[in-house]
Amino acid sequence: MQNKEIRFASRPAGLPTPENFQIVDSEMPQLNDGELLVRSLYISVDPYLRGRMREGRSYVPPFAIGEVIRSGVVGEVIESRAPGFAAGDMVTGMLGWRLYNIAKAGELRKVDPKMAPVTTALGVLGMPGLTAYFGLLDIGQPKEGETVVVSGAAGAVGLTVCQIAKIKGCRVVGIAGSDDKNKYLRDELGVDAIINYKTENVAQALKVACPERIDVYFDNVGGEISDAVMPLLNQGARIVLCGQISLYNLDKPDIGPRPQPYLLVNSALMKGFIITGYAARFAEGVTQLGQWLAAGKLKYAETIVEGFENTPQAFIGLFSGDNLGKQIVKVA
Amino acid sequence: MQNKEIRFASRPAGLPTPENFQIVDSEMPQLNDGELLVRSLYISVDPYLRGRMREGRSYVPPFAIGEVIRSGVVGEVIESRAPGFAAGDMVTGMLGWRLYNIAKAGELRKVDPKMAPVTTALGVLGMPGLTAYFGLLDIGQPKEGETVVVSGAAGAVGLTVCQIAKIKGCRVVGIAGSDDKNKYLRDELGVDAIINYKTENVAQALKVACPERIDVYFDNVGGEISDAVMPLLNQGARIVLCGQISLYNLDKPDIGPRPQPYLLVNSALMKGFIITGYAARFAEGVTQLGQWLAAGKLKYAETIVEGFENTPQAFIGLFSGDNLGKQIVKVA
Repeated sequence: MQNKEIRFASRPAGLPTPENFQIVDSEMPQLNDGELLVRSLYISVDPYLRGRMREGRSYVPPFAIGEVIRSGVVGEVIESRAPGFAAGDMVTGMLGWRLYNIAKAGELRKVDPKMAPVTTALGVLGMPGLTAYFGLLDIGQPKEGETVVVSGAAGAVGLTVCQIAKIKGCRVVGIAGSDDKNKYLRDELGVDAIINYKTENVAQALKVACPERIDVYFDNVGGEISDAVMPLLNQGARIVLCGQISLYNLDKPDIGPRPQPYLLVNSALMKGFIITGYAARFAEGVTQLGQWLAAGKLKYAETIVEGFENTPQAFIGLFSGDNLGKQIVKVA
Repeated sequence: MQNKEIRFASRPAGLPTPENFQIVDSEMPQLNDGELLVRSLYISVDPYLRGRMREGRSYVPPFAIGEVIRSGVVGEVIESRAPGFAAGDMVTGMLGWRLYNIAKAGELRKVDPKMAPVTTALGVLGMPGLTAYFGLLDIGQPKEGETVVVSGAAGAVGLTVCQIAKIKGCRVVGIAGSDDKNKYLRDELGVDAIINYKTENVAQALKVACPERIDVYFDNVGGEISDAVMPLLNQGARIVLCGQISLYNLDKPDIGPRPQPYLLVNSALMKGFIITGYAARFAEGVTQLGQWLAAGKLKYAETIVEGFENTPQAFIGLFSGDNLGKQIVKVA
């Protein structure tokens, strides 16, 4: 068996390029007691990884040059020297972008392929689903009849947020970057109003789409789309800062109208969060998401690219919005 | 007895001027059952009144042209046709800028001159004190050992915030606009570090003053001073949006670095509030503030201008920071 890995070759300036990554043949790792050998089946690429490619202070330390990139992976146990795991088990965890990884038992959890397709462990039943669940319910606290606006609505987090807000009885307005994505949001997920930020004037479209103004804004993108939301906030509005993908490749300060005056006059709240802060409640989240999924109340979408070597390109494509729902690389 | 009143004559463009106000002789009002005649002794001028001079949506409706300006007033009951009040009682409430007002009993509360000077009903034991108390404790939630930064630190709200944060065991950094104010904050109130935003580079001074970064930012001013705070936020920081006085006279959008990226990477919270939202807890606040005052743990400062006719100028002076602590007009 030949191993391969994808290393972080250089820090991107602006939009990452394939040259920022290096795909190399590497040694097959040796197992020690307590460890497992895992063959990668699916690799998750996520916008937040761009933050780790930048030097400086963030909620996770930056990747070092030469380091193997790590993200969510679903794999099969090839060999186990850890109790509780056996060859053939399907597992998920934060692993390197490698064909084969060594992992400790504590870094992995088992995935039951009979419950749901294993890729959902990287999406609706994984980090993006939990991000949607806790961000919307804990910070956004949507109430029946309220208006919830979601930017990046067709991404893995966004489309889960849209559906949970619908389950909670809200009017949901989704903002995404293509008519195809918006058609999916409206026709498949029942989103009440949709806005294509690439072809429409978002400020005007929001006014039409939100006749009773905006109570919750779940923000995945930041920048000018968020600017358009601020003048429409209701008293007591909640803004969930989940991501700012429009800014991740910006190499200069993000200048625009400061939102403070809008928050002030509306007694509104804006809060950032990181999903690992909710680790103690993950079981609650996965259980509820799984029940909604089983009951047909929650759908998910995946965009799957084939081939380990295409992982960097799949990641880069996130920033042009190539993906509907969760972007995944199928390794084999 | 001749009555006088100050009407809102025209909407200011930028900084208000005396021409935006009209001082006129007016009728002595006639009392009906359930009403009281109140002679104004002290009038409160407050930055938030500038918001009511602007047309458009805010948390309180705008003043109409020709309307008498209203704000907090302390007065003496001249005649009472309401149960529970008698001539000679000292009272406070939101009343017109008039020498004599008619008020309903429900609009007033009695002030006990034996407890504290009656002007404190407009300051440390009134709206500014309650604003400091609930904004800092309910939204800011300062914990012992944390660093609390206060902008507009020498205003009526700011200097109360500084002292409550000290009572809670925090390191307190005050930002104000004169060395005299800062000397007062440091020498009289025990503020740990002070910054004069008119003569110092606030970003650099904050770095020095906050070696363990910033946990709570109580914001009375907004704009560039707030920009300087954002890069120093700690994980889980709380920003209390109390006022944005640097912007109130701005007639164009407030452009600058958007704070969202800083909130995101720090899982930080930013929240606006309006003190009337805490009305149900005012008794708690006044009781606690009164106890601290009686125990000598809380001090207050007042800047008193004499003469009813000087009320507009006292208000205008707020925007150049003429006041240390609560700005009050002594009517008689």
